[in-house]
Amino acid sequence: MESLRVALAERSYPIHIGAGLLGRRELYAPHAGVAIVTNAVVAPLYLAQVKKALGQTADIVVADGEDAKSWQGVARVVDGLLAARLGRDGLVVALGGGVIGDLAGFAAAIYQRGVPFVQVPTTLLAQVDSSVGGKTAINHALGKNMIGAFHQPAAVISDVATLDSLPERELRAGLAEVIKHGLALDAGFVDWLEANVEKLLGKDRGALAYAVRRSCELKAAIVARDEKETGERALLNFGHTFGHAIEAGTGYGAWLHGEAVAAGMVMAAELSALMGHLKKTEVARVRALLQRAGLPVAGPALAPERLLELMTLDKKAAKGRTRFVVLEAIGRARLRADIDEKAVRGAIVAAVR
Amino acid sequence: MESLRVALAERSYPIHIGAGLLGRRELYAPHAGVAIVTNAVVAPLYLAQVKKALGQTADIVVADGEDAKSWQGVARVVDGLLAARLGRDGLVVALGGGVIGDLAGFAAAIYQRGVPFVQVPTTLLAQVDSSVGGKTAINHALGKNMIGAFHQPAAVISDVATLDSLPERELRAGLAEVIKHGLALDAGFVDWLEANVEKLLGKDRGALAYAVRRSCELKAAIVARDEKETGERALLNFGHTFGHAIEAGTGYGAWLHGEAVAAGMVMAAELSALMGHLKKTEVARVRALLQRAGLPVAGPALAPERLLELMTLDKKAAKGRTRFVVLEAIGRARLRADIDEKAVRGAIVAAVR
Repeated sequence: MESLRVALAERSYPIHIGAGLLGRRELYAPHAGVAIVTNAVVAPLYLAQVKKALGQTADIVVADGEDAKSWQGVARVVDGLLAARLGRDGLVVALGGGVIGDLAGFAAAIYQRGVPFVQVPTTLLAQVDSSVGGKTAINHALGKNMIGAFHQPAAVISDVATLDSLPERELRAGLAEVIKHGLALDAGFVDWLEANVEKLLGKDRGALAYAVRRSCELKAAIVARDEKETGERALLNFGHTFGHAIEAGTGYGAWLHGEAVAAGMVMAAELSALMGHLKKTEVARVRALLQRAGLPVAGPALAPERLLELMTLDKKAAKGRTRFVVLEAIGRARLRADIDEKAVRGAIVAAVR
Repeated sequence: MESLRVALAERSYPIHIGAGLLGRRELYAPHAGVAIVTNAVVAPLYLAQVKKALGQTADIVVADGEDAKSWQGVARVVDGLLAARLGRDGLVVALGGGVIGDLAGFAAAIYQRGVPFVQVPTTLLAQVDSSVGGKTAINHALGKNMIGAFHQPAAVISDVATLDSLPERELRAGLAEVIKHGLALDAGFVDWLEANVEKLLGKDRGALAYAVRRSCELKAAIVARDEKETGERALLNFGHTFGHAIEAGTGYGAWLHGEAVAAGMVMAAELSALMGHLKKTEVARVRALLQRAGLPVAGPALAPERLLELMTLDKKAAKGRTRFVVLEAIGRARLRADIDEKAVRGAIVAAVR
């Protein structure tokens, strides 16, 4: 097991990474009473291990899928916490993927004005990204993650053994965020990924643990400097402005988030090249790595105008300019707000080719 | 106008107190876009003044009453914020009493993971208590304020001219919390209240402004030291353990919160006397001041056993011991967790006499 720390003063917390961690009682935060929030797919696989570690728990099992991230979903979790008479010194454990982490984390943020929670992510996407950094949220008909809170966990327990049960497609989608961390922040990690992508796809536990650790290190360093995303943290959105438009344009769920981000990163790399930052050979390198990870490198069958429109809607919703994360080089991302629509269209077209 | 500051590092904010402040644009926080949350009673009285100060605003008018503090209520406010396309640099203005402040503050806390809000309290209770300190919440069938967030306002604008329209009974209920601040924290303020209670009941603006200012000063100092109520802030709950049981036992709404707290303070004073802290003459002084303010000094027609039961339920819900705030002297409150049921019953009986 390896442990790292997210440095946030009194809200600092450890991330534990290894195989077979679910049952280790000492990794969970101290508490008077525990409620475990999980879903109907994860519960039969891993709930017993966690319960063995924690003794008497209240279990709140929601349906699998993004629909749980709703007012109804969070009301149901809060009902469960109240039925369990969980106090302010109680603990909420989020056992599952990103949906469960977002939902249980948000419920913990607002239950009695905030109780501690521990993230136990069981998907690669959640282990390398969503479980770290304290963003919690539910969706609204008018936008994803529109309702939420910054609520840092008391600990993150990333057990790579739980990835054994992860479907191949979700593993690949998780790899997209791993690759994002390298492309945006660490050229050396990109080198490592190029050398180890087959091991990762083969679920080699040592390789997975390293990929999770390095992703968390990179993300934790940024979160420590910019918890509420007023600046630098936005670099972690590399590929996401395009990616969100792809998800919205294809109907949420058709493309997995990581798949949309992968194609979005190709568009963002093409945009970086159009802006004169990135060499064409580097764009090719981005594309090749994503392709080897089994990820899409071209956008969906949507007119570039439609994607542009969706990005503009996004912009109007925030009453600000759309900012793009571009690469100055592999491993060095930068935020730019001065990019014109023509360049963005050019990047979309280049990625579709 | 007088201004004080709640010192909370980067979350510090000013409280402005005076008459005729609603229309002063410079008191509101800077913003790109504003949504005003208010209710059907307050809107016809004061919305136009605020809109005149702020220019173009989105107005979200909810029904009057505690029922607005619900999942449905907060969903409705969030719908309104999204419909207005309020961005993360937008501002939510809470124009109304404690219900509106709690509801709009909670909506601001969770909309896009938190946007700034300004409290414009229009009841005495909200001006002296609920608008200061960052507690926001909605109710659950199993308990009041069970769902919420700590979300400090960007500013509080307390316009005592708005108290002109406040019903007599609500003015008196607000005075209960003013008196609480004196009894718990400042003997000199109790002297002042004894000399000025008639002026306050007569809505003398100078007296009201002083009572609001002194209450806010006392509360702000405690909030600055203990924002999340891990210790000292609990002193502000003087009279509230009994008061909550009275509210629950009589059915919410039958007694106003301040009325229940007034009777609860008499019980807490009697308890303090039973513990040997407070002299009988001091208990009589507490009772006399509340009586002069037109507030109840005896509990409702409920068996002491029923109130005790409700306090025990409260205790079970929190899986901790019920802690009581007692007075060591007028103006000096202290938290005690070691009080036995017999003394509590004795205090209830003494207060009913």
